[in-house]
Amino acid sequence: MDQNTLKKSAAEYACANFIHDNMKLGLGTGSTVTFLVDALGKRIKEENLNITTVSTSSRTKRQAESLGIKVVDLNDIDELDLTIDGADQISPDYQGIKGGGAAHTLEKIVATASKRNLWIVDESKIAEPFGSFPLPVEVLDKAQNQLMLKFEQKELNPQLRLNENGKPVRTHFGNLIVDLHLGQIQNPHELGAYLKSQVGVVEHGLFLDTVNTVIVGREEGRNCIDNIR
Amino acid sequence: MDQNTLKKSAAEYACANFIHDNMKLGLGTGSTVTFLVDALGKRIKEENLNITTVSTSSRTKRQAESLGIKVVDLNDIDELDLTIDGADQISPDYQGIKGGGAAHTLEKIVATASKRNLWIVDESKIAEPFGSFPLPVEVLDKAQNQLMLKFEQKELNPQLRLNENGKPVRTHFGNLIVDLHLGQIQNPHELGAYLKSQVGVVEHGLFLDTVNTVIVGREEGRNCIDNIR
Repeated sequence: MDQNTLKKSAAEYACANFIHDNMKLGLGTGSTVTFLVDALGKRIKEENLNITTVSTSSRTKRQAESLGIKVVDLNDIDELDLTIDGADQISPDYQGIKGGGAAHTLEKIVATASKRNLWIVDESKIAEPFGSFPLPVEVLDKAQNQLMLKFEQKELNPQLRLNENGKPVRTHFGNLIVDLHLGQIQNPHELGAYLKSQVGVVEHGLFLDTVNTVIVGREEGRNCIDNIR
Repeated sequence: MDQNTLKKSAAEYACANFIHDNMKLGLGTGSTVTFLVDALGKRIKEENLNITTVSTSSRTKRQAESLGIKVVDLNDIDELDLTIDGADQISPDYQGIKGGGAAHTLEKIVATASKRNLWIVDESKIAEPFGSFPLPVEVLDKAQNQLMLKFEQKELNPQLRLNENGKPVRTHFGNLIVDLHLGQIQNPHELGAYLKSQVGVVEHGLFLDTVNTVIVGREEGRNCIDNIR
């Protein structure tokens, strides 16, 4: 099976088993979530469900609206029942790295507003060592040079993320992404607190003690790890 | 004497005594800094000084450039020798609240990039209790409702800052300002760490252990408190 088949399998399982009528639902961003939104559009139509969603990117919003899914602004909702999102890497104790698509700040805002969080991934995302996926940090453009110098001194191997035209990638909020090439993260809580405390850092891609359920698409069949915390 | 005379007195003293040739200088924002920039433009012209500045707002940048002062981007400088800025309130142990002009995030980035920081204020800013000036917090617009709810629960009396047309004030970075009406701040380090750690908070207006020198314009003559830390 190719990776897309595994992603689709995890997404469709999540849609069939974790979404109920009258839910307020957060929708993540990325290729696995694309499969989820497709399946959700189908379920809403077939079962005439009343689902209100909040999206974490303009990409997800466009896709959801094109399928007739109701999308509202997070500021119009006090609490979400569940957010379903992907992840770039998940550790053996279910900590996550997100932000490969530069959407982690909005994803974290939505995750924080949710009673429960569910991640859907293919098996390649359950990888060791944790931190082999570069850690994205969203930074204010005016602080770029200062933070790059600081991160270099601390040997965090920072690299400004560029797009295919060689220009800096801009986030939803107009900020920059610095990827930390760490190879391995020994103490994610300490690193996360350090990063967030820096002047000019908007949000890092460590999602700590966040996820409640992980669904993994595997070659040998699906895996659902529930009630993690 | 009116407040402006006191501000001007502090600003001119700072310009005459703390600015030297070949300095890399950070320029703050606000009415007191306006007097400083005027005095600096005059000194540079009269003494033919070689001063490079970084500004903390488009207002300060425009004023400085109109006076022939060289202004560069902070990303083109590794370290500033000195930043001179105002403050909205200063505690007896020289902690500060800034952000009345919604520029505190950029001001803090520039302050952090400076070897030394000097604040110029009129005597009304040395007020007690510390926290009687509302504490500005810059937040991402998508997190506004979530953070307002959280701050209300924590009894921090948050209020979204509006402009004279009743629209939300936007910062240099396009974000919102929430003012916390606290009356008094007992533990500024604890509060600052709490605020900065929240998802969606970009930067708060507490400037802790930052300032090295304060110049206070007083009715009874100027006050210069140097080598604070």
